[in-house]
Amino acid sequence: MGKGRVEAFTDGVVAIIITIMVLELKVPHGEDLSALLPLWPIFFSYVLSFINVGLYWNNLHNMFHTVQRVDGRVLWANLNLLFWLSLMPVTTAFMGENHFAPVPVAVYGADLALCAIAYFILVVTLHRLHGNNTAFARAIGNDRKGKISLVAYLCAIPLTFISQWIGVAIYVLVALVWLVPDRRFARVIEK
Amino acid sequence: MGKGRVEAFTDGVVAIIITIMVLELKVPHGEDLSALLPLWPIFFSYVLSFINVGLYWNNLHNMFHTVQRVDGRVLWANLNLLFWLSLMPVTTAFMGENHFAPVPVAVYGADLALCAIAYFILVVTLHRLHGNNTAFARAIGNDRKGKISLVAYLCAIPLTFISQWIGVAIYVLVALVWLVPDRRFARVIEK
Amino acid sequence: MGKGRVEAFTDGVVAIIITIMVLELKVPHGEDLSALLPLWPIFFSYVLSFINVGLYWNNLHNMFHTVQRVDGRVLWANLNLLFWLSLMPVTTAFMGENHFAPVPVAVYGADLALCAIAYFILVVTLHRLHGNNTAFARAIGNDRKGKISLVAYLCAIPLTFISQWIGVAIYVLVALVWLVPDRRFARVIEK
Amino acid sequence: MGKGRVEAFTDGVVAIIITIMVLELKVPHGEDLSALLPLWPIFFSYVLSFINVGLYWNNLHNMFHTVQRVDGRVLWANLNLLFWLSLMPVTTAFMGENHFAPVPVAVYGADLALCAIAYFILVVTLHRLHGNNTAFARAIGNDRKGKISLVAYLCAIPLTFISQWIGVAIYVLVALVWLVPDRRFARVIEK
Repeated sequence: MGKGRVEAFTDGVVAIIITIMVLELKVPHGEDLSALLPLWPIFFSYVLSFINVGLYWNNLHNMFHTVQRVDGRVLWANLNLLFWLSLMPVTTAFMGENHFAPVPVAVYGADLALCAIAYFILVVTLHRLHGNNTAFARAIGNDRKGKISLVAYLCAIPLTFISQWIGVAIYVLVALVWLVPDRRFARVIEK
Repeated sequence: MGKGRVEAFTDGVVAIIITIMVLELKVPHGEDLSALLPLWPIFFSYVLSFINVGLYWNNLHNMFHTVQRVDGRVLWANLNLLFWLSLMPVTTAFMGENHFAPVPVAVYGADLALCAIAYFILVVTLHRLHGNNTAFARAIGNDRKGKISLVAYLCAIPLTFISQWIGVAIYVLVALVWLVPDRRFARVIEK
Repeated sequence: MGKGRVEAFTDGVVAIIITIMVLELKVPHGEDLSALLPLWPIFFSYVLSFINVGLYWNNLHNMFHTVQRVDGRVLWANLNLLFWLSLMPVTTAFMGENHFAPVPVAVYGADLALCAIAYFILVVTLHRLHGNNTAFARAIGNDRKGKISLVAYLCAIPLTFISQWIGVAIYVLVALVWLVPDRRFARVIEK
Repeated sequence: MGKGRVEAFTDGVVAIIITIMVLELKVPHGEDLSALLPLWPIFFSYVLSFINVGLYWNNLHNMFHTVQRVDGRVLWANLNLLFWLSLMPVTTAFMGENHFAPVPVAVYGADLALCAIAYFILVVTLHRLHGNNTAFARAIGNDRKGKISLVAYLCAIPLTFISQWIGVAIYVLVALVWLVPDRRFARVIEK
């Protein structure tokens, strides 16, 4: 089974997710600047999710570069990841529209955690298919960054109920850590 | 006529269908956990439809792998399938928002049945174009799974009016049967 | 300038148009069969537009098959066609929600006419770029079908104000004429 | 890292942006011609944004033609541009629904300016990666048109508060300047 169409389908779904999120940015009522100000939580949530989905696309892009083949299991592990990513527009709007109330912030974190778990399952599925000592296995290494992110999200969820800003701060921090370009795949590819 | 663009167009439409379904998952009113609970029927419907559309994509992906050429008839048989799939977001929301009331569950089943019929027509159209003793014909075989699914859906519709949960159970069961990876195409490809 | 990316972009936009049209099919209020009946005008409009957009995709698909190169003019002639096609979801919903009232039916016809004009401009632009005695010119011929469709749409608009059903009948008829597979391109390609 | 998938993803996102903008064109209430007239500001905004997004697609298309490779920086510079483009549907609807009131017109201009800045950053990022004396550097030249557009947008924002029509006029003018086909890339490609 060719990886080409899986990549194309994934690109399509991620492109749609990242773009329809903007539909939750409802047109503000009123026509002066004071109508825009109350939108900041929605806008900030949108920026955060745009970066998160962008990171997933980037990581999937790099990962599939070293992938040599896919099977039915990989396909469903990938669809599982796309499922949790597809919930992003709703969880983002839920967090933004409720001005970062604790429960919505925790729900957003739960979605991020489920994406991270799905990504981890996808990596393990691909690892099993390719075996050790392959370009894929070397590129992935022990995926420390992915594991730490997952732990961070899982910590953020209960901490949200102490203060939701701890949760939000953790989400921003994890995104920033990932924005630092991931050299692992690049290193293997260049070799 | 090249099959490449038909595949690309189909991938595009299926990617959009699977992603815009999430737009029916309206942002919950309220900001505590009790606001999330009433969403379970909508969420459950969404999961079921995500899997069903994912299955169609998977099956179309595998099927087109053994296809050698397409003509106008195939193109319209394919568009016919995409039409019934495109109704999934509406029938899914209709079922979820009405908390699995009998009529919406039956309508959802009717859409699944019409997708199955359209898939069957597509298979027959491709079979006629390719003839017997081709990779396509060998891969498809007698498509027992497809026929059984159609019969199951057609039975589910009237049974829904005895209890809607029979209908829902049948839809879940058929999806599970398909989730078991279909080895038919893989077998022929590997040969 | 390669035609590949123009084809891919066009496929993408048409795939999105054909799929987001379904978002205008609002989830019916109520949970029994009587809630579905009032939806027939919206459903019928949706079917008609699905076929029309499908026809345009099919024709663009075949036409670009014989195209050898594109330039800036072609690109904008193509975007012009996509613009009028992109209005389909709105004009379709306008017609359906108003149960085929004369003005909405005329507006729908105007959109179809503008699509036909845009298609005609695209054909002329491509013809000029390729010159006579090319595969493209031979395939297009004098585009009788396209011209007759345009005349039919332009007649339908005023006739709608006598009876809207004349307009609707003309739209259905033109779609049926096009559904008869167009052998012109196929003939040239096979040669 | 191959430029192919970056192009495909960009095409996908731009295709979706240009198409979902139409979802802001709400179906008019009422069924006679007088129901359509009040829609002109929304329709006019839609046309303007369709052309602007079409121009970006066109420019990105031409630019990536001369690009030889991409890295993580390019990818994020590109995502940054897509982010500001993705706000187009909202800023367009904000401007149209408020019948070109000064603040919405200024906000629309700010989005255009931010797109222009993001485009400029993308050009600089690609320039740095490719170095001088490359097809890319020659094609881009000093990007005078891009810089003048940015200055025009930045002037339009304050001028909007004198009269919003100055702002609108500037946006239309800049779009017209770009519609004149850009020969720079074509010239280099032809050589």
